Amino acid sequence: MSERPDDTLEMEPAAKVEDVAEPEHDEVDAAVIAALDTGDTAGLKELVDGLHYADVADIVERLNPDRREQLLTEIGPDMAPDVLAELDETVREEIFEAMAPEQIAAHVQELDSDDAVEIVNQMEAPEQQKVLEAMPAPDRRLIEQSLSYPEESAGRLMQREIVTVPTHWTVGQTIDFMRQAAEGDDDILPGSFYDIFVVDPMHKPVGTIHLSHLLRAKRPVKVTDIMETELKLISVTMDQEDVAFLFRQRDLVSAPVVDEAQRLVGAITIDDVVDVIHEEHEEDMLALAGVGEDDLYDAAIDTTKARFRWLLVNLFTAILASLVIGLFATTLEQIVALAILMPIVASMGGNAGTQTLTVAVRAMAMRELTSTNAYRVIGKEVLVGAINGVLFAVITGAIAWFWFDAPQIGLIIGLAMIINMVIAGLAGAAIPLVLDRFGVDPAIASSVFLTTVTDVVGFFAFLGLAALFLL
Amino acid sequence: MSERPDDTLEMEPAAKVEDVAEPEHDEVDAAVIAALDTGDTAGLKELVDGLHYADVADIVERLNPDRREQLLTEIGPDMAPDVLAELDETVREEIFEAMAPEQIAAHVQELDSDDAVEIVNQMEAPEQQKVLEAMPAPDRRLIEQSLSYPEESAGRLMQREIVTVPTHWTVGQTIDFMRQAAEGDDDILPGSFYDIFVVDPMHKPVGTIHLSHLLRAKRPVKVTDIMETELKLISVTMDQEDVAFLFRQRDLVSAPVVDEAQRLVGAITIDDVVDVIHEEHEEDMLALAGVGEDDLYDAAIDTTKARFRWLLVNLFTAILASLVIGLFATTLEQIVALAILMPIVASMGGNAGTQTLTVAVRAMAMRELTSTNAYRVIGKEVLVGAINGVLFAVITGAIAWFWFDAPQIGLIIGLAMIINMVIAGLAGAAIPLVLDRFGVDPAIASSVFLTTVTDVVGFFAFLGLAALFLL
Repeated sequence: MSERPDDTLEMEPAAKVEDVAEPEHDEVDAAVIAALDTGDTAGLKELVDGLHYADVADIVERLNPDRREQLLTEIGPDMAPDVLAELDETVREEIFEAMAPEQIAAHVQELDSDDAVEIVNQMEAPEQQKVLEAMPAPDRRLIEQSLSYPEESAGRLMQREIVTVPTHWTVGQTIDFMRQAAEGDDDILPGSFYDIFVVDPMHKPVGTIHLSHLLRAKRPVKVTDIMETELKLISVTMDQEDVAFLFRQRDLVSAPVVDEAQRLVGAITIDDVVDVIHEEHEEDMLALAGVGEDDLYDAAIDTTKARFRWLLVNLFTAILASLVIGLFATTLEQIVALAILMPIVASMGGNAGTQTLTVAVRAMAMRELTSTNAYRVIGKEVLVGAINGVLFAVITGAIAWFWFDAPQIGLIIGLAMIINMVIAGLAGAAIPLVLDRFGVDPAIASSVFLTTVTDVVGFFAFLGLAALFLL
Repeated sequence: MSERPDDTLEMEPAAKVEDVAEPEHDEVDAAVIAALDTGDTAGLKELVDGLHYADVADIVERLNPDRREQLLTEIGPDMAPDVLAELDETVREEIFEAMAPEQIAAHVQELDSDDAVEIVNQMEAPEQQKVLEAMPAPDRRLIEQSLSYPEESAGRLMQREIVTVPTHWTVGQTIDFMRQAAEGDDDILPGSFYDIFVVDPMHKPVGTIHLSHLLRAKRPVKVTDIMETELKLISVTMDQEDVAFLFRQRDLVSAPVVDEAQRLVGAITIDDVVDVIHEEHEEDMLALAGVGEDDLYDAAIDTTKARFRWLLVNLFTAILASLVIGLFATTLEQIVALAILMPIVASMGGNAGTQTLTVAVRAMAMRELTSTNAYRVIGKEVLVGAINGVLFAVITGAIAWFWFDAPQIGLIIGLAMIINMVIAGLAGAAIPLVLDRFGVDPAIASSVFLTTVTDVVGFFAFLGLAALFLL
């Protein structure tokens, strides 16, 4: 980073150029830990005050439980409510355990409605009840109403504070209204917003105006003349994954949400959608590896339980593969080279299949793989499997031949390799498509089916061919 | 979807409530295919004109190559330039092959600078040259300048068209300026924007004003009184992954980009960041499965080549595992049950390790796992591995005992299971951390190291214990 020459504007603090975000984090972590360990409360407060709330949340998450508790005792009451909203659910629960419901309610009230709903939603039922009771009636009603929408729906994501104007207004009236609304202590406008919604007398949205378009219009212009009428209205019950897709597809920054009667009830903004995108990606990625949800901050015992289920399923597929091997016990007893080589065929099939599977699951999540091109994609994957199958048949066959000085073993492992890699391509592409057709999330169940197929086919093809031709 | 009663506003088209995005897609695809197959050009044009450009791009991608070419012949020249920007790189290349450089240049010029740069960047060098030469000098210079920034840097992502105001202006002057700038044919304002940047005489940014804050201020207020001065300036060379992290962390919608001399040169907006987030996620997810990049639209031969490398690496690790098995050839010859059971130990270790690895890689990408909490996370994963190891030792041991009526085989597979699952937890957490320390992307190389470890340890522990105690 180059040095910054003196600024012509004395009053402004020098803006900081961010180049790489990472190293700084470690340094701040170390400084916070040092302040905690030396009991330097004043230094700690100063450190934390200088940080963005999201950074504070990250530090709290990374500290070990003892230091986390110490930090909260020392600066807890002064912590910005926004820090709570940024925290991981497990860590936040820990913190709430040390707070009175009234304290929690006071923090929650200060948040935007969408953040408040998310936090309250994640509480255990009895705690939720206590916190809601400690809130003033209007705030409580707003949160309870949002909680009545299905989980992961647009209704949960949306912000209730929006700016609406009637159809007969002009640009001038709109700007005056906002200036008035912002006046005094009781600013009724949302913190930051991007669009103004034009509504009819029934409070149904008829158009949106991006602020940058409002600003370039002259005062007497009617709002209906500059509003965008090609609206994508989002229903309160729309799934958040579909919301995220729509935002990405249309490059939206905010979108109106309507209830069953088509009345405008809120708006979803891009920052909430970015969180959804991260969540959905994480779900897909972890599901493919057989992890239920991100469990970095869970206690070891909870993580163990969550992973146990998947491993149990895997144990049964592994036993299934062993049963297949067991069919060829006599063959194995006579030719020990087969036992040595057989994991190669299964492993290559599993890996080739996983490549295909991951591409397919990803493409389905991005809606690039649909029934329109399903057969073409499957066909291509089978072809890719066949070509790579032949290539690896030659390589592996040659290695096996020289290793055991037996050309017929090389031939058999080569044939088995081709069979298993073709099946891997077919299964890798077809399994997620079939699961999706039956309404099952392909990310969750695909890999266990796939490895079952590639293990069973791999062992059966290799040992079966050997039994047929070598004995 | 409920029926919509007659609107009070006759002039507006009824807005459409979007509830689920998916089924509609298949229908439109089918309609487009039908129009193509019956040669109904008018119907096809009407269909496509009614769609958002991103949807058109998706349809073009999903069509098979023959129909794609037909679609382009029929409606190609009328297609919106934005469709090109939305297309997958491979599909776009195909389309460009059928277009003259002048045609391409004309389309590219109409795009926002960030989209134009991305498209030109992805062209082959000779084609890029031709297209750039066909563009007017100012546009060409802008693109060439952006191309001079490193790949995947903020300079490539940013939009050059921004609104800046000097520090001595008032809110009124700013609004008047925008109204004037928007007048006439030559609208110099960017299409949509979210922030106005306040710059000093050296064109260094001193503050930003969110449009919603500009609108609530009265005309005589000075811009310096309402601007946000806690800026996160992004350097043109900042990596796009760091940009995305910053946007997410700070809930940013747009951010100023500065050159080495700290002068404002552009702004990055959230829509570009959303694309980066998707890209980075995709990279991580595909890398973990050994796929270089999303290759859904690549020709089969390119996909085969790209995947071959990873499979070759996997072949060597599989052979390494076989070498370990080979060490125990005599043991296997005497007890065939070992050959039947041994894949279970390796498979369970591989799966448990992959669970840990995926959580770790994901947490590192989200900067939740750093050196601050590395030892704690590793410790927890080892503990989880140990607990699940004991549980599965009991289950698998019991199964093996009854299957082969040999308690000692049950005991040995149980011991091997515990060893391999502890090692899997350790390796799954430690490998990505160590790779990251050496500057290697943990998503790319981790899984091959992991399966090598779990295979080798799994086979060695099981067969080694058997050789020691059973013979």
